[in-house]
Amino acid sequence: MTIKAFVFDAYGTLYDTHSVAAATEAAFPGHGDYITQVWRQKQLEYSWLRTAMGRWQDFRAVTRDSFEYTLATLGLTADPATVDRLVSAYDRLTPYPEAAEALRSLGPYRRAILSNGSQPMLDSLVRNSPLNGLLDMVISVDPKRVFKPHPHAYELIEERLGVAPEEVVFVSSNGFDIAGATSFGLRVARIERVPGDALRTELTGGPIGPAAMFKALRTQPERLGCAPAAVIRALTALPDLLGRGVFGRGVF
Amino acid sequence: MTIKAFVFDAYGTLYDTHSVAAATEAAFPGHGDYITQVWRQKQLEYSWLRTAMGRWQDFRAVTRDSFEYTLATLGLTADPATVDRLVSAYDRLTPYPEAAEALRSLGPYRRAILSNGSQPMLDSLVRNSPLNGLLDMVISVDPKRVFKPHPHAYELIEERLGVAPEEVVFVSSNGFDIAGATSFGLRVARIERVPGDALRTELTGGPIGPAAMFKALRTQPERLGCAPAAVIRALTALPDLLGRGVFGRGVF
Repeated sequence: MTIKAFVFDAYGTLYDTHSVAAATEAAFPGHGDYITQVWRQKQLEYSWLRTAMGRWQDFRAVTRDSFEYTLATLGLTADPATVDRLVSAYDRLTPYPEAAEALRSLGPYRRAILSNGSQPMLDSLVRNSPLNGLLDMVISVDPKRVFKPHPHAYELIEERLGVAPEEVVFVSSNGFDIAGATSFGLRVARIERVPGDALRTELTGGPIGPAAMFKALRTQPERLGCAPAAVIRALTALPDLLGRGVFGRGVF
Repeated sequence: MTIKAFVFDAYGTLYDTHSVAAATEAAFPGHGDYITQVWRQKQLEYSWLRTAMGRWQDFRAVTRDSFEYTLATLGLTADPATVDRLVSAYDRLTPYPEAAEALRSLGPYRRAILSNGSQPMLDSLVRNSPLNGLLDMVISVDPKRVFKPHPHAYELIEERLGVAPEEVVFVSSNGFDIAGATSFGLRVARIERVPGDALRTELTGGPIGPAAMFKALRTQPERLGCAPAAVIRALTALPDLLGRGVFGRGVF
């Protein structure tokens, strides 16, 4: 079977969600790190819980609700303009350093995003970034009214891009997404953003704060019975993966 | 409409999940607090993700997988007997101090548990505890092959206990469960195990460690569009709630 497309998760895979930290720290001095970590964690939780409950709302609403939850834990509130400004920080995330080069090198293939973000969030995100022009399609889960890792979300790849699941390499750093895509039948490359040994050093070398707790919860291989086909340490390793004719297990 | 039954969540509502901390600390000295918090958080995440993915496994398996994930973040492993022993700590949790008295005082009503725990886990949990004999029924989500907050889980109350949703007061400390039960149509009392002002003091008074992060993520009112009908600070407030003929908002 020939690979025809590379489909990428956005948040945490092509774009660094922690690039909101400067904005949260500027708005809430001394609390930026805590807010950034709890906000992202609750944003994910709300997407999973709304999917399980059958009460989908788009990712902009989920991002706003999780931000307000996070502020409330500190006894803080913010006026609507501040909330809007912070939430829209998700429209201006910084891509990972190697993302543009990796997308360029995959030019012969279809290149797309499949993300939980709402279509307007994703369109702004790409337009505001150096990845603009390097993607053939930016696909939001919006029309399915569920979030990844629900299988309906991954159906959009075939429906929108016209490629069969077995013709796709799906790339994500997010354990839940790796499990969901693998479970759906895609060939998945896990991009390892925090190596296990680096995390272990951080967890055993001193006090465990919000950033270390976030990494502990979010960056390590999940035990959900759906291991990825390959593990890479940089997106630029993707062409080599194909060049070797392999899509087996290993770190490239 | 007459209330006929009180249905309780088990983990965090009648029983304190942090009572596993002594066992984790004894097995992994110096890591007990971290392991206890991350384990419980991942246990919940795996239940939500497996529900969203349509890949249910019972809560014993989820509890084991999340425990092994947690150990792996520290670079630790454990032999199968140790894993079994730690996982079975969830069969011997300590009830909250007021739980038995509260159940006794609700004697005129049907009293049941509806929990994500597997039936064997729950049967052991109750049998090993002073709540044994104080419950008319212990209901696991097992037959539905989804976890709370999926609506199918809450259908079990009517199917097993023979009471309509509007005849039930459902009691939980867990935000996802409060949202799921409210969304399903039950009258929900939220038991507040960590008051907001206590959490704020903890988060702003010094370094934020694993226990504070857990409380920040898990104990405050969720923003999922499904607020509970009432908030209580002890389970023993439940008869008074009914006695007042109210099930409106407020802290009792």
